[in-house]
Amino acid sequence: MKKSIVLLLVVSLFLISAAVSDSIKSNNMNGMLDNHKMTQVGFIVSDIEKSATTWAEFLGVDVPDAVIAEGHHMNPTTYRGKPSDAKAKLAFFQLENITIELIEPLGENSTWKEFLDGEGEKVHHIAFEVNEMDETVKKFKKFDIPMIQHGGWDGGEYGYMDGTEKLGVIVELLQHYNR
Amino acid sequence: MKKSIVLLLVVSLFLISAAVSDSIKSNNMNGMLDNHKMTQVGFIVSDIEKSATTWAEFLGVDVPDAVIAEGHHMNPTTYRGKPSDAKAKLAFFQLENITIELIEPLGENSTWKEFLDGEGEKVHHIAFEVNEMDETVKKFKKFDIPMIQHGGWDGGEYGYMDGTEKLGVIVELLQHYNR
Repeated sequence: MKKSIVLLLVVSLFLISAAVSDSIKSNNMNGMLDNHKMTQVGFIVSDIEKSATTWAEFLGVDVPDAVIAEGHHMNPTTYRGKPSDAKAKLAFFQLENITIELIEPLGENSTWKEFLDGEGEKVHHIAFEVNEMDETVKKFKKFDIPMIQHGGWDGGEYGYMDGTEKLGVIVELLQHYNR
Repeated sequence: MKKSIVLLLVVSLFLISAAVSDSIKSNNMNGMLDNHKMTQVGFIVSDIEKSATTWAEFLGVDVPDAVIAEGHHMNPTTYRGKPSDAKAKLAFFQLENITIELIEPLGENSTWKEFLDGEGEKVHHIAFEVNEMDETVKKFKKFDIPMIQHGGWDGGEYGYMDGTEKLGVIVELLQHYNR
């Protein structure tokens, strides 16, 4: 009887430790992210019609229509912690494995305008899809990558995380609802 | 008899024009490139061990070994048209759909060192695989995107094309032999 209890204890401890180790592994396996699929490379441009035309010719595709991104009532835009009425013109090129996003800032108080003024027309961010924006933003902050800008659209929200110092690039987090 | 010859001519012309149109389409459908698969986003860093450690923690993966890229006898390195003995330390992170490449310049006379001095630790290039380096380089030149640096390794060659002005980023062309 004693023997079987000890055996049961040993087996239970083994199973519990295996489960805990699996859980740690699964939490850490993508680091700060939920997956390792880069969904976008985003470029800041000063004249989206001009840049979209050049990229379209470069890629041999039709010039995409530019769309205007503005604040959304569900997730009003904040820039460095303060409300912002910044907008941007966006154009997208869907490549085989990733999307190229062109962004022309409209107005002040955005990472877009700040980047155009400070850096010029260059790669602004790489993007990843996340499951839980708030949780991911917390993880990033612990990793010394603070949020610069947050906002939303019909069906989702975004957060620009300032990885400039640590990674050499801004990381955009995208959460699509109901996916 | 006359009628059937005319009919034959009309059908032939139709088939020829369809073939020509297909060929034009297939030549242009990827623009300056052979495909629309972005294979790399390349970052210039000043200390590859430090950056590789940070990226590894960020992604939740092991720190990759850095490898040294140097000139290859088959494709001696040229930088802005002149021979160069530039080297670099490289580290790679294979994501689900794309590779992140970290590059620490060693020595002078390279786009890597020039970029680190002028721009700092940022996104340096996006890369695409090509079928015929020389043909693609010609197309890029006609599109006002000149080559900055060219070199090779066992099994392939690369060309850095200066898309900074037109696209906001350097485009690296990679040709793997025997693929």
